[in-house]
Amino acid sequence: MGGDFGCEVVVPAAFEALSRCDDIQVVLVGDRSTIEAELARAGQTSERLSIHHASEVVEMDESPALALRGKKDSSMRVSINLVKEGQAQACVSAGNTGALMATARFVLKMIPGLDRPAIVYALPTMNFSDPQSILNERVYMLDLGANVDCTAEHLHEFAVMGSVLVSAVRGIKQPRVALLNNGSEEIKGNEQVKAAAQILANNSMLNYTGYVEGDDIYKAQADVIVCDGFVGNVALKVTEGVAKLIKILIEDSFTSSVFRKLCAVTAMPALQGLKHQLDMDRYNGASFLGLKGTVVKSHGSASVSAFATAIEEARLEAIENVPNRIQQQVQALLEKKEG
Amino acid sequence: MGGDFGCEVVVPAAFEALSRCDDIQVVLVGDRSTIEAELARAGQTSERLSIHHASEVVEMDESPALALRGKKDSSMRVSINLVKEGQAQACVSAGNTGALMATARFVLKMIPGLDRPAIVYALPTMNFSDPQSILNERVYMLDLGANVDCTAEHLHEFAVMGSVLVSAVRGIKQPRVALLNNGSEEIKGNEQVKAAAQILANNSMLNYTGYVEGDDIYKAQADVIVCDGFVGNVALKVTEGVAKLIKILIEDSFTSSVFRKLCAVTAMPALQGLKHQLDMDRYNGASFLGLKGTVVKSHGSASVSAFATAIEEARLEAIENVPNRIQQQVQALLEKKEG
Repeated sequence: MGGDFGCEVVVPAAFEALSRCDDIQVVLVGDRSTIEAELARAGQTSERLSIHHASEVVEMDESPALALRGKKDSSMRVSINLVKEGQAQACVSAGNTGALMATARFVLKMIPGLDRPAIVYALPTMNFSDPQSILNERVYMLDLGANVDCTAEHLHEFAVMGSVLVSAVRGIKQPRVALLNNGSEEIKGNEQVKAAAQILANNSMLNYTGYVEGDDIYKAQADVIVCDGFVGNVALKVTEGVAKLIKILIEDSFTSSVFRKLCAVTAMPALQGLKHQLDMDRYNGASFLGLKGTVVKSHGSASVSAFATAIEEARLEAIENVPNRIQQQVQALLEKKEG
Repeated sequence: MGGDFGCEVVVPAAFEALSRCDDIQVVLVGDRSTIEAELARAGQTSERLSIHHASEVVEMDESPALALRGKKDSSMRVSINLVKEGQAQACVSAGNTGALMATARFVLKMIPGLDRPAIVYALPTMNFSDPQSILNERVYMLDLGANVDCTAEHLHEFAVMGSVLVSAVRGIKQPRVALLNNGSEEIKGNEQVKAAAQILANNSMLNYTGYVEGDDIYKAQADVIVCDGFVGNVALKVTEGVAKLIKILIEDSFTSSVFRKLCAVTAMPALQGLKHQLDMDRYNGASFLGLKGTVVKSHGSASVSAFATAIEEARLEAIENVPNRIQQQVQALLEKKEG
């Protein structure tokens, strides 16, 4: 029910995901009559699709605490309950991020040994000598906003969770884990980052590769990049801002005179390739890590195709049982500490 | 002598700056014979150009502390001494940033009442409904790396200094000052940012407009954006990284097939416009604020044209006597506090 478009996007996205993945079932959680109307409009049916009614909706600007306390039958809460009860293996929502995080944490609980959940997102990245590599390369960055005041130990937790995730969903045995810093030299960094570097280097279960700077995010130099949620949020938003600015300038360049308009027509095939490479629909779906269950957050303004991508991400994490893998890794770390 | 290219760029840039600004004189500080050889190669002379010999050079990877203690006759140290003694009104360097900052702070001293210097840089920004506005709009962001662990009071100092700078060099009477945050809602922010918001809102001499997010940097929503040096460095580097990635993808789009190459030829006029708008040569020169003198840091890999732009920036700050204006503002604040 959430996001900027609600069922209007989620229902067709469910059909899109069902057609992309023949091993999933989709439960649409929310107001039954609204969903049924949207299904009628879509004119499609599937045996792998069902409706689970929920009478309330968390608003996009609602306080997470109020949503958690006051709306026990919200589509968000009911969806997460289904995961808790094992009736669903993952929850995907385009709704209020804070409320989704608070509800997921309250219902699913943290994996023992972990202090806080983190938000992770796979960004496009590229080997600069091979531009086509952008179609396959990904860098998983966390935290992206759940935790703004972090200790070095929190950054270590993010590194462990990110490494397990990438190993599971990308099949990389020893993911390269880097710390985002304001310089690559050893003396650089704020207090937390410098302290985290020591902890990461001492964890032999991690393939810690050192510091990276902001521009390294897009150079395919690491598989996992760790930072606090404040810095991660700024890095993600700056990326969106710069990409948007350049997009507008390109469009303007090609439409600001008749001659240029002619150029635009011939340039189209080239720009279409660029559009595909930078298509944000291909990169939707941020995961909550550290919880005893899989929850994926879609961008609020996601398109049908983008929301289907978030469902695919959730499917992969559920198949690989990422929460269980993280739990095992944390357990091993705790035993090593005690032993 | 510093930067990636030394005299090879600085000497022709000096001539470029002399031709752009008829009211300046340039003193080239460094090894006389090296400079004279470069002057001979340039085949130009000017009555407004002179050489001041310095026997040492601070290396780009040298420790700031060692450079400060060990190289009393470095081109960097001697240049800043000239500012201290009033023989020059500003120093411009493409050299080692840490050493330049340490030397400037040691020689020039802080303005009384201020705790730390900050690095500020004018980024291109744009009113999205008018892409041509990118040619004139600027947002001054600070700190960009001098201070990684900041208190709320440090952020307040940055706000005051940035506001004075923009008012002086851009002629804006009440510059809009914003705090960079991980969300625009009041509850967002780490501890320092939330505390700084209170201080900024209570300073009636500032036109504080509230929080901005990472993508707002490029939307011409503020004249001054305040953040700690860690976050500022990441935001700046992410910007560089995204712009570089898109640049490579555009080039690749236009060269990856014969048909596309043909498109590229006709698209050139459009892309040339874009190239001009995003030309980093037009945005070179980061200023050190809080010191009793003007010091501008050029990018180490700046071109001749870019280094000349940094000289222009230094000229403007010297003409407007920015250090003096900051001193007056800080004095007024201190008196208000005591009164």
